[in-house]
Amino acid sequence: MIISRKARELTPYVPGEQPGQQGLYVKLNTNENPYPPSPAVEDALRRYRWEDLRLYPDPCSLALRTTIAARFELPVEQIFVGNGSDEVLSFAWYGFFDPENGPVLFPEHTYSFYPVYCDYYGQPYERIPLASDFSVDISLYLERMKEEYAGIVIPNPNAPTGIAISLQEIETLLQATEGKRLVIIDEAYVDFGTETSVGLIERFPNLLVVHTCSKSRCLAGLRVGYAIGSKEVIQTITAVKDSFNSYPLDRLSQKIADIAIQDDVYYDKIRDMIMATRRWFAEAIRKEGWEVLPSQANFIFARYPGASGDAVYHELKSKGVLVRHFGHPGIEDFLRITIGTDREMERLLLLMKDLTCTAGVSKR
Amino acid sequence: MIISRKARELTPYVPGEQPGQQGLYVKLNTNENPYPPSPAVEDALRRYRWEDLRLYPDPCSLALRTTIAARFELPVEQIFVGNGSDEVLSFAWYGFFDPENGPVLFPEHTYSFYPVYCDYYGQPYERIPLASDFSVDISLYLERMKEEYAGIVIPNPNAPTGIAISLQEIETLLQATEGKRLVIIDEAYVDFGTETSVGLIERFPNLLVVHTCSKSRCLAGLRVGYAIGSKEVIQTITAVKDSFNSYPLDRLSQKIADIAIQDDVYYDKIRDMIMATRRWFAEAIRKEGWEVLPSQANFIFARYPGASGDAVYHELKSKGVLVRHFGHPGIEDFLRITIGTDREMERLLLLMKDLTCTAGVSKR
Repeated sequence: MIISRKARELTPYVPGEQPGQQGLYVKLNTNENPYPPSPAVEDALRRYRWEDLRLYPDPCSLALRTTIAARFELPVEQIFVGNGSDEVLSFAWYGFFDPENGPVLFPEHTYSFYPVYCDYYGQPYERIPLASDFSVDISLYLERMKEEYAGIVIPNPNAPTGIAISLQEIETLLQATEGKRLVIIDEAYVDFGTETSVGLIERFPNLLVVHTCSKSRCLAGLRVGYAIGSKEVIQTITAVKDSFNSYPLDRLSQKIADIAIQDDVYYDKIRDMIMATRRWFAEAIRKEGWEVLPSQANFIFARYPGASGDAVYHELKSKGVLVRHFGHPGIEDFLRITIGTDREMERLLLLMKDLTCTAGVSKR
Repeated sequence: MIISRKARELTPYVPGEQPGQQGLYVKLNTNENPYPPSPAVEDALRRYRWEDLRLYPDPCSLALRTTIAARFELPVEQIFVGNGSDEVLSFAWYGFFDPENGPVLFPEHTYSFYPVYCDYYGQPYERIPLASDFSVDISLYLERMKEEYAGIVIPNPNAPTGIAISLQEIETLLQATEGKRLVIIDEAYVDFGTETSVGLIERFPNLLVVHTCSKSRCLAGLRVGYAIGSKEVIQTITAVKDSFNSYPLDRLSQKIADIAIQDDVYYDKIRDMIMATRRWFAEAIRKEGWEVLPSQANFIFARYPGASGDAVYHELKSKGVLVRHFGHPGIEDFLRITIGTDREMERLLLLMKDLTCTAGVSKR
């Protein structure tokens, strides 16, 4: 057998469908931003010195990290960049979680890559139940932390629920760690209405905050994520990167992300648009009888009481709209619907008003 | 302690210097191609639909893999692409090498990332000595393979020596594995005069051949590498990738690599130029008293008998030319010199004729 023992046991992550013919669907299934990146990105691409592609990129991504550091008013040594926040998270798993310390704790319903990383690294994990309103209940973590654990990962806002916790709750959690284990706050969706926890790093050097350019910066296609932490934590994650692949970020990605991150005027505008669309859309489907969790992300998590999530997913797909259906027990009837443009959401709303599979369903 | 046990023990790879102000040096230290990528790359970049960067890339890189597959007349299921051949190799280490099977075997002097991967994955390794002429001696592997081993990695041509082995030797090696362990032939430099071993995959499904776009395709800045193997092997490495990071290749990299790989006319031309430059340059410095190993790569490995490699490295750097000096025992006086343009090599030749540290050195 030439395959390694650990590779034989892998259960890979399954990303949302990427339909071959994009034009056929309204694509609201992978939380992409419906708006194009900053026009400065086009300019950068058109003027890029293409001849330079013959040269290796800066393995330290210094220019990009300097831009990010300035935004948070932190030294550049506190910033790490990687090939999407997925890679950043993967390196953090390697760098900070020890199977011998016990399980990594994360929410029962959360980003489904977390258990995949755990399996990949042979790291036990434990899913902490959500509260009955599907929010992250910090008191359950505090209780669990009385026993051994290897670390904690919480997205804020959480996915796929979209529900955020407060900085006060994160601080309480960090205090309870007594600095002994890493806490990752995955802020992939933070720009759509949640306050960042970066300000807590100074007092809690065991906090790692992870961001991505895929959502609020409209650059899912570019693969740039980053992490903010104490110098010691960033030094460790950098050593992990440099032992795996010295140059995970190509020249174009470093350049374009740098340009995009600087254009606040544009990105503030489209963020406000998405949040406005989210508000009216959530309100409109609530009026149609849908239960919609209070989202602070660029998606909503919703179900039609009494209707099958699977049936709604398939009916919407058959009518040209792709949303994400996870089907996990406890959230099996929820759909995660990315917030698109007003026009896309109007089209979806019309469809949702007219679904066969919710018609006449007696509500719970 | 928040850092994981394994992260505390890492010794990261150290890439060749990337001087901040490129213009100050003739940069012959990281085996970059001195020529720009195909003009078709510029065109692709200028015309790229930048708005699409808001969407995730194809996680399977199907279009790029299809282009590569066609070149080798193989089904697309036999092609894997990754974020540089470094990432491809790293995934292969995870997917096929088991510490419990014994050490991975690779040449004593070779790509210095191999031992780094081993440390990263907790995988023992054993360096097999080179022959006295610095070539890879297959008979030593055959002898060693009578005992337990986890796999074999051989670059062809080897780096930093530049010396190639024959397909017949690779076939002998593969036969001796009896299909039980993976053999990686790292063909990063194959296009500069060595025959590829891809044709052996059909008979030896435990062979993985790794290529890169960084050298012969002039795209070091883009981070695209690929691997060719049996369907089973490619399936495994894909599962590893999908458990680590679903989208390691961004949209631009997939597109640009695809375009570049198709432009054989341009790349054949510059490959011939580099091989011609290598020939005259090696000959010229031999006349100056240098010992030059017979290279089939875009670099040469050379020493001035009796002179210190370290001293030559520093004197060349002080005079504006960066070359690579490894300093490992056994090759401590060799320098790896990337083949640049004729003009760059002429400048280097003049410097080498006039070195203080080789003047008057009594040859061994």
